[in-house]
Amino acid sequence: MDRDIKNSVGIVETQIVRVVEGDAPLRLKCGKDLGPIDVAYETYGELNEQKDNAILICHALSGNAHVAGYNSPDDRKPGWWDTMVGPGKPIDTHRYFVICSNFLGGCSGTTGPSEVNPATGKPYGLDFPIITIEDTINVQKLLLDKLGIGHLLAVIGGSMGGMQVLQWSIAYPDFMDAALCIASTTRLNAQSIAFDAVGRNAILGDVNFNHGQYHDGPVPGRGLGIARMIGHITYLSEESMRAKFGRQLRTAENYNYEFDSEFSVETYLDHQSRTFIERFDANCYLYVTKAMDYFDLAREYGSLEQAFSNTSCRFLIASFSSDWLFTPEQSEEIVNALAAKGKDVTYCDITSSYGHDAFLLEVQKLGRLIGGFIDATWHQVRTGQRILPEKCACADTNKKTHKHDYGKRVRVDYQLIESLIEPDSRVLDLGCGDGELLCRLIGDKNVTAEGIELDEELVIHCTQCGVSAIHRDIERGLEMYPTDTFDYAVLSQTIQTLKDPQKVIAELHRVARRVIVSFPNFANWHCRLQLLFKGMAPITKQLPYRWHNSPNIHFLSLKDYDHFCAEQGIKIEQKIPIGKHTTLPVRILPNFFAAQAVYVTSKH
Amino acid sequence: MDRDIKNSVGIVETQIVRVVEGDAPLRLKCGKDLGPIDVAYETYGELNEQKDNAILICHALSGNAHVAGYNSPDDRKPGWWDTMVGPGKPIDTHRYFVICSNFLGGCSGTTGPSEVNPATGKPYGLDFPIITIEDTINVQKLLLDKLGIGHLLAVIGGSMGGMQVLQWSIAYPDFMDAALCIASTTRLNAQSIAFDAVGRNAILGDVNFNHGQYHDGPVPGRGLGIARMIGHITYLSEESMRAKFGRQLRTAENYNYEFDSEFSVETYLDHQSRTFIERFDANCYLYVTKAMDYFDLAREYGSLEQAFSNTSCRFLIASFSSDWLFTPEQSEEIVNALAAKGKDVTYCDITSSYGHDAFLLEVQKLGRLIGGFIDATWHQVRTGQRILPEKCACADTNKKTHKHDYGKRVRVDYQLIESLIEPDSRVLDLGCGDGELLCRLIGDKNVTAEGIELDEELVIHCTQCGVSAIHRDIERGLEMYPTDTFDYAVLSQTIQTLKDPQKVIAELHRVARRVIVSFPNFANWHCRLQLLFKGMAPITKQLPYRWHNSPNIHFLSLKDYDHFCAEQGIKIEQKIPIGKHTTLPVRILPNFFAAQAVYVTSKH
Repeated sequence: MDRDIKNSVGIVETQIVRVVEGDAPLRLKCGKDLGPIDVAYETYGELNEQKDNAILICHALSGNAHVAGYNSPDDRKPGWWDTMVGPGKPIDTHRYFVICSNFLGGCSGTTGPSEVNPATGKPYGLDFPIITIEDTINVQKLLLDKLGIGHLLAVIGGSMGGMQVLQWSIAYPDFMDAALCIASTTRLNAQSIAFDAVGRNAILGDVNFNHGQYHDGPVPGRGLGIARMIGHITYLSEESMRAKFGRQLRTAENYNYEFDSEFSVETYLDHQSRTFIERFDANCYLYVTKAMDYFDLAREYGSLEQAFSNTSCRFLIASFSSDWLFTPEQSEEIVNALAAKGKDVTYCDITSSYGHDAFLLEVQKLGRLIGGFIDATWHQVRTGQRILPEKCACADTNKKTHKHDYGKRVRVDYQLIESLIEPDSRVLDLGCGDGELLCRLIGDKNVTAEGIELDEELVIHCTQCGVSAIHRDIERGLEMYPTDTFDYAVLSQTIQTLKDPQKVIAELHRVARRVIVSFPNFANWHCRLQLLFKGMAPITKQLPYRWHNSPNIHFLSLKDYDHFCAEQGIKIEQKIPIGKHTTLPVRILPNFFAAQAVYVTSKH
Repeated sequence: MDRDIKNSVGIVETQIVRVVEGDAPLRLKCGKDLGPIDVAYETYGELNEQKDNAILICHALSGNAHVAGYNSPDDRKPGWWDTMVGPGKPIDTHRYFVICSNFLGGCSGTTGPSEVNPATGKPYGLDFPIITIEDTINVQKLLLDKLGIGHLLAVIGGSMGGMQVLQWSIAYPDFMDAALCIASTTRLNAQSIAFDAVGRNAILGDVNFNHGQYHDGPVPGRGLGIARMIGHITYLSEESMRAKFGRQLRTAENYNYEFDSEFSVETYLDHQSRTFIERFDANCYLYVTKAMDYFDLAREYGSLEQAFSNTSCRFLIASFSSDWLFTPEQSEEIVNALAAKGKDVTYCDITSSYGHDAFLLEVQKLGRLIGGFIDATWHQVRTGQRILPEKCACADTNKKTHKHDYGKRVRVDYQLIESLIEPDSRVLDLGCGDGELLCRLIGDKNVTAEGIELDEELVIHCTQCGVSAIHRDIERGLEMYPTDTFDYAVLSQTIQTLKDPQKVIAELHRVARRVIVSFPNFANWHCRLQLLFKGMAPITKQLPYRWHNSPNIHFLSLKDYDHFCAEQGIKIEQKIPIGKHTTLPVRILPNFFAAQAVYVTSKH
């Protein structure tokens, strides 16, 4: 990271404030009382008059309150998320007031196990009570109270910071407009607990650990270093390690046949471990990893769905494709639970080779996603309007078809579909693309709209224009939605590209009262005559591909779909055969003359 | 594992033999001399008169010479691969003579770093020279010399044992008929080196390590235990950890808010670490992991292909889908290098949730694969015949179509294809299924045959009947084969199921001088008239599916393929339109009357 004070929030100072007095201690989750509690924090930007532009950032295991800018003009590096927070940056300090505090149990100014225990006059060591994610956010809340902040525009965090975000949305459901949970989970899996346990074992078994009372002697650096090495392996992906180090030797051309570190990856770990020992505290590592191990929303609230039942903010959940510490699947669990409870959730799995560290490194894509989400939320807070006109796909109706959609979408069916949907209804658009149909429906019909889309860039686009979309392959199923969640499910010009149309159509009829499907008619006269007279796979405006490069993998006619519906027990409420360029129904021999069709169907 | 002496090789004794005398030491790879060297080994079964039934097993990091049976009637557990080795088991001791020795640097009887150094009268400790995989197999070779074994039917090993197998095939290329390399790699990736380095760091930093001279005091158990814990996490998959432990607590219902191990996965690691400390040596762990880190065939021989250039045995490479320590991709590197050098290689990626440990646990599938491979090799050694008649798919020509192939394969085109292939040529069958066509070609035309097949069970079937097949999706490309490797590449009734036929056809014409493609004719009169008059997606004998459940995702006619070949610069040498049930060519209006077609094409 280059030193660039001008393009940052500048020189900032970490503040320390006492949020709990010694004579009125805080009751922790473990049942013990703790006090006094001091909190270290930083702020950037200005709190506006309405006090509606405050954003809380929650940091991860090795982070601290110093998110952005420089603590002194001599600092070599800026804060840990300087790429995201600052003037003109995704979390724009021209517009927003940003707060971050070092968490409870930390070692960067907030009360923690290596601070002096007023009862003994010695550092707490292992006498410090076990803290939980819930405790840490309760202390953050006390800090916000002190700062006079009664509402947050957003709370955002990655990794352990994301756990705090989720806990915030549950514990203080009306306190924020948006919650952004990046590369996180509602509970560690067995593998992550195992890694944490090995790290703690190394610290607890270090000859210098001395029950946590190592402050007058050598620190348990060997143990902490090993814990950090293990951590670092889990933060990188195999792919990024391969790209960064491979099997490169640090200096020599040949093996030295000694046990010294000689592979580059070994010296990297040595270095990471050495610098970590200088800036981090072994006791703190024990407490923080334990807090993560204990975090388990399903356990705490009965089920994950139950945990989210009272939340009221918008959610953005983001994961990274190569993150194997907190995996995309774990983020999807959050998405599924929120969707099951009818919450407003956007999800994006960002393609990245950086592994878990991507939440610090994947600046460009993550920046557009979280910046877009926060700006859209801010727009809604200020104007009451969901869609940002300047970002909206349907703003210019003459606009060319989005490149990702080329050939798959035929715009004329959108007009028809829009006319079929009743105002104020709830709509799910499968393969929602850049959100054009949903923008129209929100703007013209005041619907509650959600989209599912496979393309990452299109999901980011939806997010920026204010449409909530879930990044997912629709063939993976919609099991997160309860029966009859939606008034309409729309599958526009997509059925012919599905591997298993039968399964998808059945799921759509489960989750929605009405299903609107549009597709090109393979038995159009054009196709029939081409096959009959040319003896080749037909090529038409609706089916513009050659046999070998078509994304269409199933070909159906109106009659095929009629038969299919009859077999599947699906009731056809409306069947609208149309031409290429007009929504006027084709009334004569529709299976012969129609270029495409729109069906409205329901369960019998 | 149940105690079942009767169904095992019974009570066996570990033997120790001196293979290197102190006055004639062995020159190691690192340049140092070592001697004397003793080797601990076990054997099962009987060496036959021809001495052609010997199989060498190479063990993994924590293994030893005790592969099968029991060392005493009181033993609670049998040897580490008792499921694979014994009477009637996959490596059948009724038929084969099996040898396994503890590797050099080990701690189960073979000379290693905790043995007494005759020069000092004290254990070697860190004075033991760094050993390599090459050193360990050279010592195994000395053992075989002592035992009077001049040739091996097979050498087999998993994990680090697989590295030894590869080294054997390279260092002694004429010494074995078959090499079986399970869940292994030609070199550790950066992530694996990192895990090893952390483990060694824990041992070297243990307060009791004392430069490896810990034999009179407490052992460095803390460090070794941590190394073992890390190892165990890498041996299991996330999935198997989740299934085995999840977030289960060991005893209590609630968190105890202490640092004791309370999750089941923590107590499991504690237990594994404790028992390992009792039976394994910390010095040995250092040396063995270093030997693995150093193993790098590409580095040693210039390139991986170069490394295998002089090998002459058959290879079976097997990996496990959930193994993230030595990944399927790493096994595929071996397969690709062998294929590039024209070696006889079979590959199977076994679907398993067990992670790296699957090579010990996936008994049923792995047993059929390696048992089938060894038996087929043995059949070839004894009879000179490649195909095992009793296992062969084409043995019964009236046999029903194999279930995995139903609908995809139309047997009549096989007869035609067989007639088109010249004797003694080299043939690649893409999507070879159960190997029927290749068996015919090997038997009737004496071709050198290889198959590529996506279905795991069909690959195992091919292996059992003596056909070499590579388990792979043909769409992933054939880049491992040099240009013009084959006389013929056959793509039978598969082109219409490919996502990208253009890419595959181009690759086939690169790797083979002639390409034989067969496919159902979509412009057959049946299809044309069905679409014309019924207005529905056609259903015929050749295209028997409904629009929504067809595996066929591209539809083409003879004319389509003619055009395609012209565009792609492919020369059509023969074009044989045929009917449903006969190989008689359709001469009149073939694109209208033929149900299918066989094309022989070549590059211009």
